[in-house]
Amino acid sequence: MIKRRKSKELTIGNIKIGAGAPISVQSMCNTDTRDINSTLNQISELAERGCELIRLAVLNKDAAEAIKEIVKKSPLPVIADIHFDYRLAIQCINNGINALRLNPGNIGKRENIEKVAALAKQQNIPIRIGINGGSLEKDIAQTDLPLSEKMVMSALRHIKILEDLDFDLIKVSLKSSDVPTTIEAYRLISDKIPYPLHLGITEAGTLRGGLIKSAAGLGTLLSEGIGDTIRVSLTENPAEEVTAGFEILKCLNLRQKGVNFVSCPTCGRTQINLIELAKKVEERFKDLDKPITIATMGCAVNGPGEAKNADFGIAGGIGEGYIFKKGEIIARVKENEILEKLDEIIRKSSI
Amino acid sequence: MIKRRKSKELTIGNIKIGAGAPISVQSMCNTDTRDINSTLNQISELAERGCELIRLAVLNKDAAEAIKEIVKKSPLPVIADIHFDYRLAIQCINNGINALRLNPGNIGKRENIEKVAALAKQQNIPIRIGINGGSLEKDIAQTDLPLSEKMVMSALRHIKILEDLDFDLIKVSLKSSDVPTTIEAYRLISDKIPYPLHLGITEAGTLRGGLIKSAAGLGTLLSEGIGDTIRVSLTENPAEEVTAGFEILKCLNLRQKGVNFVSCPTCGRTQINLIELAKKVEERFKDLDKPITIATMGCAVNGPGEAKNADFGIAGGIGEGYIFKKGEIIARVKENEILEKLDEIIRKSSI
Repeated sequence: MIKRRKSKELTIGNIKIGAGAPISVQSMCNTDTRDINSTLNQISELAERGCELIRLAVLNKDAAEAIKEIVKKSPLPVIADIHFDYRLAIQCINNGINALRLNPGNIGKRENIEKVAALAKQQNIPIRIGINGGSLEKDIAQTDLPLSEKMVMSALRHIKILEDLDFDLIKVSLKSSDVPTTIEAYRLISDKIPYPLHLGITEAGTLRGGLIKSAAGLGTLLSEGIGDTIRVSLTENPAEEVTAGFEILKCLNLRQKGVNFVSCPTCGRTQINLIELAKKVEERFKDLDKPITIATMGCAVNGPGEAKNADFGIAGGIGEGYIFKKGEIIARVKENEILEKLDEIIRKSSI
Repeated sequence: MIKRRKSKELTIGNIKIGAGAPISVQSMCNTDTRDINSTLNQISELAERGCELIRLAVLNKDAAEAIKEIVKKSPLPVIADIHFDYRLAIQCINNGINALRLNPGNIGKRENIEKVAALAKQQNIPIRIGINGGSLEKDIAQTDLPLSEKMVMSALRHIKILEDLDFDLIKVSLKSSDVPTTIEAYRLISDKIPYPLHLGITEAGTLRGGLIKSAAGLGTLLSEGIGDTIRVSLTENPAEEVTAGFEILKCLNLRQKGVNFVSCPTCGRTQINLIELAKKVEERFKDLDKPITIATMGCAVNGPGEAKNADFGIAGGIGEGYIFKKGEIIARVKENEILEKLDEIIRKSSI
């Protein structure tokens, strides 16, 4: 239903970005990159959650050196996040990095940039230009424009530096902690450049508030067809970022991953402990790898009808429950047997 | 920044809806409406969270009778949710209800509808036509159109019934549990009718998934200027719906309510336990009634700079932290004294 913006295509390891490729979910390790074991452990944990691309902060030579072994053993393509020091970029490329996040205007004189761009081009290494509303170049920050326009101006300047060097393996992000500013910045740039866009709300906060800001901001852009890869930034275990990323994409029907859970709000008609039951259903089927919808409804009156688009569901009665499939009741069981029975039915099903 | 869709204005109790009035947040009790004390207790709890309108299920005569006392004592305007039985609507209006949610096509013959519309008009009682994607009229459900178009068709049919009776105190909702369908339905109807729109994703699920679906769906519509009042439907304590509603509106700068929390994702640069610290900051200031932004940042290097739009903030160092105000460091304190000091500074401040 969503018509996606057209962009050039990039390849990072085994992941394609842009030009209609599935919108990928990425995250960033919060380990010390020099601690190879901890970093690889976290990458594995994130890969298990479904993460598709992983970014690491490369702050110094030792971190850039660690990249060599990390890239060799990582189950995911690795992106190095580099500021200011072009030598770290060169070192990472030589150590097999799959992509860079680097703003060319921040790594000094033109000959440094030329070296990085030439080597990246030769090795087919994409570069993400990552604009952050809080750290713009002084001359741009001092203009009177709205922040979203300043961010776009900054991005276009960095892009031009690479384009002038005949480098076009570019991806762009424009993150602000203010959701409308972020939305506006991406909207503004979306028809000005042909490159894929990496979406994110920066400094979105802890789990609850961060989910809301990210879902509202990324959801709006994705609904408008904007965005080729996403990172949900949370002040939390990065594994939560991955789960949230897929949940945002799933709810917009942009990716399929596991079960879609539906449940009615409680109301005066509810005859069972619906909140508990809905949580148990989610817990039980959260790792089920079937692209189905399971509905948990409070009453048998509206349950099957209102959730008729669900593949499977349960509706509560007094001390018992009904199990339905595609809107039809197929079993009536005691309250304490609902979950077992539903599980049996779903796992047996060919859907 | 968001240009809102123009609509007629309605008044429900002391709350204005549409025509540029602040987007209001509503919820629904999950008590038995006949249990007057429990219902009033829940209304008070929700009012304390900031809820502005409350809906109650009115399933029978006893519930419609209870409305009399509930309306008298409720701190919030009360909306009765009625299906099928027009006599309950008449009884609620006579008992002082502030608004109805009722689909006129579902309450039987024309003379029933006429009675309700005439009385509602006389008493200035708005009616919300609430379309639910899962319970459409059979003839519409059987057409080959996309669900979003069926929902709009159903809404227009109900609207026409009221308009033909010269009744225009109308509010409309078009809820589906599928986010893109809901977005599309509201987009389609938004320039076809002049009435205010009540937004919601139905059966959105438990807290985490429900927040994501609601923020993505409502966020998209609100960003496009669509929506005059919202309800976040969660399989949770309804108080969570109210908090989530305001968080969605706040992050789009559509309402101001309390503190906006910003915090960076952890990364290899973080020198303190940022996740814990950010949670403590939110806990400490969650009830502070100042429209300020507080940032919690992992490192003193990027902290103040990246969060310079925040009013106040803290940035972690090794065993200590910096407190900043509008991007300038104003204090350097031991790690275990950060919160106390920040609290002191914020409460003293005139912002």
